[in-house]
Amino acid sequence: MQKFKDGLAVLGGPQAEWPQNWSAVLGQARAKQEMLLGVDRGSWACLQAGFAPDLAVGDFDSVSGQELAQIEQAVPDRRYSKPEKDLTDSELMLQAAFFDYHLQKLTVLGATGGRLDHFLVNLLTFCQPMFRPFAERVTLLDRQNRLQFFLPGQHRLLPKSGYDYLGLAALQPVADLSIQGAKYDLPPFSSSYPVCFSSNEFLPGQSVELTFKKGLVAAIYSRD
Amino acid sequence: MQKFKDGLAVLGGPQAEWPQNWSAVLGQARAKQEMLLGVDRGSWACLQAGFAPDLAVGDFDSVSGQELAQIEQAVPDRRYSKPEKDLTDSELMLQAAFFDYHLQKLTVLGATGGRLDHFLVNLLTFCQPMFRPFAERVTLLDRQNRLQFFLPGQHRLLPKSGYDYLGLAALQPVADLSIQGAKYDLPPFSSSYPVCFSSNEFLPGQSVELTFKKGLVAAIYSRD
Repeated sequence: MQKFKDGLAVLGGPQAEWPQNWSAVLGQARAKQEMLLGVDRGSWACLQAGFAPDLAVGDFDSVSGQELAQIEQAVPDRRYSKPEKDLTDSELMLQAAFFDYHLQKLTVLGATGGRLDHFLVNLLTFCQPMFRPFAERVTLLDRQNRLQFFLPGQHRLLPKSGYDYLGLAALQPVADLSIQGAKYDLPPFSSSYPVCFSSNEFLPGQSVELTFKKGLVAAIYSRD
Repeated sequence: MQKFKDGLAVLGGPQAEWPQNWSAVLGQARAKQEMLLGVDRGSWACLQAGFAPDLAVGDFDSVSGQELAQIEQAVPDRRYSKPEKDLTDSELMLQAAFFDYHLQKLTVLGATGGRLDHFLVNLLTFCQPMFRPFAERVTLLDRQNRLQFFLPGQHRLLPKSGYDYLGLAALQPVADLSIQGAKYDLPPFSSSYPVCFSSNEFLPGQSVELTFKKGLVAAIYSRD
């Protein structure tokens, strides 16, 4: 099994929602010798863009027989899922990424847009005890958003070029969530239900301090 | 204040994600004398499609001065929000819909796609004690999805033409969630964290029984 430090995963969400320069994103990942992971139709998209995934996961019911044959020829590590299974295709990919390949960072394309049940699986997966320890290694990236997960603690968020807004979503009950240094600060806030604070902003040249004691928080960098 | 039974709200999410026949959806709502509610740029979209909203809510920073003037001329009930506010524009609309107009059912367009912080606010709003009692009156509708919220109890879900899949997302900790009569049944399941079961299906001509004792569940009818 080849050794990789970081990885880029391509899921089966609609390409209209992928970063506009997604093909360049793949090329950059390859140039940095990152692992390329394809899930279902995402594997085929990688191949079409000229980059063979190192790992392909899925039941591949969304690709043709000919496309599957090409995937099978090009991809060294292939894992076939069954429709009735405990883990979704995306979760099987995450399992391989973190338990088998021990990736340190994973950027995920194709996790958003289209079917909301698919997106919610991709978002809520990191609340599961099995995947929660790896949450901070993951970034979901699409055309307008860059979503990172945070575990309880104190975190310094830096402004990122091209993103105007900062949303913070407590995906689980949260204790003493505070935001400091942003356009709209938040004094320690606790909630027994999930909640999303949208449309916050970085102040020019300033970082934002995010702290909380319990739960899982998604930081969403976004633009209109 | 005019009396309405049901309503249709149009939020500011990207039109590419709206139902393909959204203009017809507006026309049907009007024909049934439903209330039309516009949020921010959604108000302008209604007007452009030939339907003046009964209520317009927002800070309207996403429309031009001329567009705002037309909205102000056409819409009888206008509510202006401030950037730094306790409720989002969508929540101000929901407050008006349920507390002032006492709507029995509300279909919402433009709640999905684009910025994830906006979508998560629209999704998680119904976990708030203020809006939770109205959750079952709400349907989020987009190009590929029809999302309905359910409070604890026993619910019979009927197949809907044009939707192939049924996803069920427990947005909060859930107790004794069970699914019966579907392609994949679920024996009573409890979870301390949110979780989404994707890609379930109705069996031909059969309804699905959803029961749970605690939490808030979103049923997502979807198609590829």
